[in-house]
Amino acid sequence: MHRVVIIGSGFGGLFAAKALKRADVEVTLIAKTTHHLFQPLLYQVATGVLSEGEIAPATREILRRQSNARVLLGLVEDIDLTNRVVKWRFHNEYHETPYDSLIVAAGAGQSYFGNDHFRTFAPGMKTIDDALELRARILKSFEIAEFTDDPEERRRLLTFAVVGAGPTGVEMAGQIRELADSTLRDEFRSIDPSTARVVLVDGADQVLPPFGPKLGRKTQKTLEKLGVEVQLGSIVTDLDDEGLTLKRKDGSTERIEAACKVWAAGVQGSELGATLAEQSGAELDRAGRVVVDHRLNLPGHPEVFVVGDMAAVPGVPGVAQGAIQGARYAAEAIQARVTNTAGPGSFTYRDKGSMATISKFAAVTQIGRLQLTGFVAWLAWLFLHLLYIAGFKQRITTLLSWFITFITNGRAQRVVTNQQMVGRLALERLGARSSGKLIHGEDLTERN
Amino acid sequence: MHRVVIIGSGFGGLFAAKALKRADVEVTLIAKTTHHLFQPLLYQVATGVLSEGEIAPATREILRRQSNARVLLGLVEDIDLTNRVVKWRFHNEYHETPYDSLIVAAGAGQSYFGNDHFRTFAPGMKTIDDALELRARILKSFEIAEFTDDPEERRRLLTFAVVGAGPTGVEMAGQIRELADSTLRDEFRSIDPSTARVVLVDGADQVLPPFGPKLGRKTQKTLEKLGVEVQLGSIVTDLDDEGLTLKRKDGSTERIEAACKVWAAGVQGSELGATLAEQSGAELDRAGRVVVDHRLNLPGHPEVFVVGDMAAVPGVPGVAQGAIQGARYAAEAIQARVTNTAGPGSFTYRDKGSMATISKFAAVTQIGRLQLTGFVAWLAWLFLHLLYIAGFKQRITTLLSWFITFITNGRAQRVVTNQQMVGRLALERLGARSSGKLIHGEDLTERN
Repeated sequence: MHRVVIIGSGFGGLFAAKALKRADVEVTLIAKTTHHLFQPLLYQVATGVLSEGEIAPATREILRRQSNARVLLGLVEDIDLTNRVVKWRFHNEYHETPYDSLIVAAGAGQSYFGNDHFRTFAPGMKTIDDALELRARILKSFEIAEFTDDPEERRRLLTFAVVGAGPTGVEMAGQIRELADSTLRDEFRSIDPSTARVVLVDGADQVLPPFGPKLGRKTQKTLEKLGVEVQLGSIVTDLDDEGLTLKRKDGSTERIEAACKVWAAGVQGSELGATLAEQSGAELDRAGRVVVDHRLNLPGHPEVFVVGDMAAVPGVPGVAQGAIQGARYAAEAIQARVTNTAGPGSFTYRDKGSMATISKFAAVTQIGRLQLTGFVAWLAWLFLHLLYIAGFKQRITTLLSWFITFITNGRAQRVVTNQQMVGRLALERLGARSSGKLIHGEDLTERN
Repeated sequence: MHRVVIIGSGFGGLFAAKALKRADVEVTLIAKTTHHLFQPLLYQVATGVLSEGEIAPATREILRRQSNARVLLGLVEDIDLTNRVVKWRFHNEYHETPYDSLIVAAGAGQSYFGNDHFRTFAPGMKTIDDALELRARILKSFEIAEFTDDPEERRRLLTFAVVGAGPTGVEMAGQIRELADSTLRDEFRSIDPSTARVVLVDGADQVLPPFGPKLGRKTQKTLEKLGVEVQLGSIVTDLDDEGLTLKRKDGSTERIEAACKVWAAGVQGSELGATLAEQSGAELDRAGRVVVDHRLNLPGHPEVFVVGDMAAVPGVPGVAQGAIQGARYAAEAIQARVTNTAGPGSFTYRDKGSMATISKFAAVTQIGRLQLTGFVAWLAWLFLHLLYIAGFKQRITTLLSWFITFITNGRAQRVVTNQQMVGRLALERLGARSSGKLIHGEDLTERN
């Protein structure tokens, strides 16, 4: 039986496995989390609208009825392209899984553009752990401000800086604003949460660059009406526990004292990209993504596909649709290989549009040349997200959670565990080498 | 204005604050978590039925419209009974809050009966952190078993031991069984989850001792029909990473190799009890609970009330109703004190009955002399729990989550974060002094 190994349970990995449902192959999906992640809604977990379960169904539950697929929990450490073996481990157990075809969809982490020391103080938005860490930091800031007498420190605690004005950054900024203005209203006695300052920073000259200048301007206006300060053409030159320093294009600098920082600025392809590049001679782009050929193959390796955020394919954006379409293409090519039929031609990406929510009832949507804003765009956003959330249970509870949040402004998921209250920062001081490593469970599982 | 300080946001603390809504007092509630906790449903978070948000609404959200109440996040370290000051801190900030009346409702932790080293290997069921840690351990056991070839180790991974056959223990055992038999069915390829062994251990001669022998026998029969092994008259003499050792009344011993252990066996009153006892001369019972007088007062301190799990009151069980009724009584007494009117007489507990679910559609309920079992008891359980869950949002999403679980056997909340995957054990090895401390955020926040 032809053995297909898939690395990753994100959009790329999961949709590749599903696309092989009727293929005469043996699928093994190896992932470092037990869940699939609907990353586009991660910001709603970070801001208390959704529970983690609603956007992260168990991968093996989704694939339970697909008898040709098995799911294994493990961190892939190495790929031996010559002997066609994937080497992975969980805790101290090492395993080797051989393959005939390989789909690498290990995704991307957040890039700090060479300033990895920012990471500790400004978590990214890539994992459930990130979202829960941010939820804790956001809510903790209000909690501490409530009993802080020093007005300067209180101001710092109530300042939230979001770096990166792509969809995730825009959505986070809008949600923190709504949290402060509506959800937390009347809950504090010493502070007025609506006086919180939310700053959205980007080096570009507009918000949502891929949406074009017109939608960018409209989005910026909506954000500013909500009370988000938009700082464009500004790059972050320094970022620490206390705040961050911006440098504008005109050379001027500004220091913003902010307790809570969110990093939504750039992506860095999985470290597995380097492993693949080293052995195959493939190139990596500046974001560490593997440059694949027009069949999504690693050069010289028709049996290895790289899809999703860790692949650099001209014209394919790093969004769910890019990963899903790449995964389906790879599955089709593998099926052709197994059945000895003509495979698909070159991979072509079909742009299904992009969308971002700004606030309740306001979104921007671009589908081809059609640009929508406001309530209509928001309805389109609602419908499409519900459609793509995996799992029946998740779909109906998410709809209910949204309904509740929309009508009450309340958020049902505001729990901060003690572990999260303690936070990554303390764990690092305790000995974990870096939160970047910690978040992938590497440092600690190694010692367990 | 008369200042009332309340310590704790559990049933005692929250209901005390709410009962003072119309009183001419200034209420300050200090708690170490930002949420209230509906502890009776904690086992459903541990087994993936409910999200943490559904049973843990934010305390300040519940009290938002009560203008005479403020909520502060902090860990109370000391109470100065002479100067009437509560000393608390959050991270490195120390605060003192004076009071005219004090309600101490800091609850209880799990007791390991002198074997505190068991704690690391068998988490209790007292906090959201506990439940999420257990969820991770339970699901991780199945995940690791899936790629473990050694049959003995696989057996150990698929053995779950629940210590303590009170309601929480019975509910956990029943839920782990259902998880293994229904929820996880067809999800694995190398193991059959239904071959998992679930052992329920108690030193007593029956399960659910407070329900009496008849309901105990019925519950045991239902549990055994489900596939739970019930080991009564057995105490745990040893417990480590690998398993546990039981000693029976006849002197025989048995070693059970079990990767996942749950401790639901005893309670230990909050450490604040010792502080109160030392200064007032009050006695502590064996479980470290403060022996209060018939007005729930600390001896010699009519301005200090101790309610809920940290108070020892003859005839009052350590359940939600005990805390709620105690809290309401204390609030009434304080109102009388403020208005200079005759206060309530001695505290009397009104038994509203007890209940425990065993599995889907099966529960046991005792209300006075009325004993119910099976579906009727389960319906009573469903209705009463929905009634007592705080928060409209929580109530409707819980109902939906239950509905989904009942009809599909699926569980929507199976996420294990990386932090939880790493787990407490690894954190301890990393340097945290004990998970007991860690779970209260003490060790780490100190260093933060």
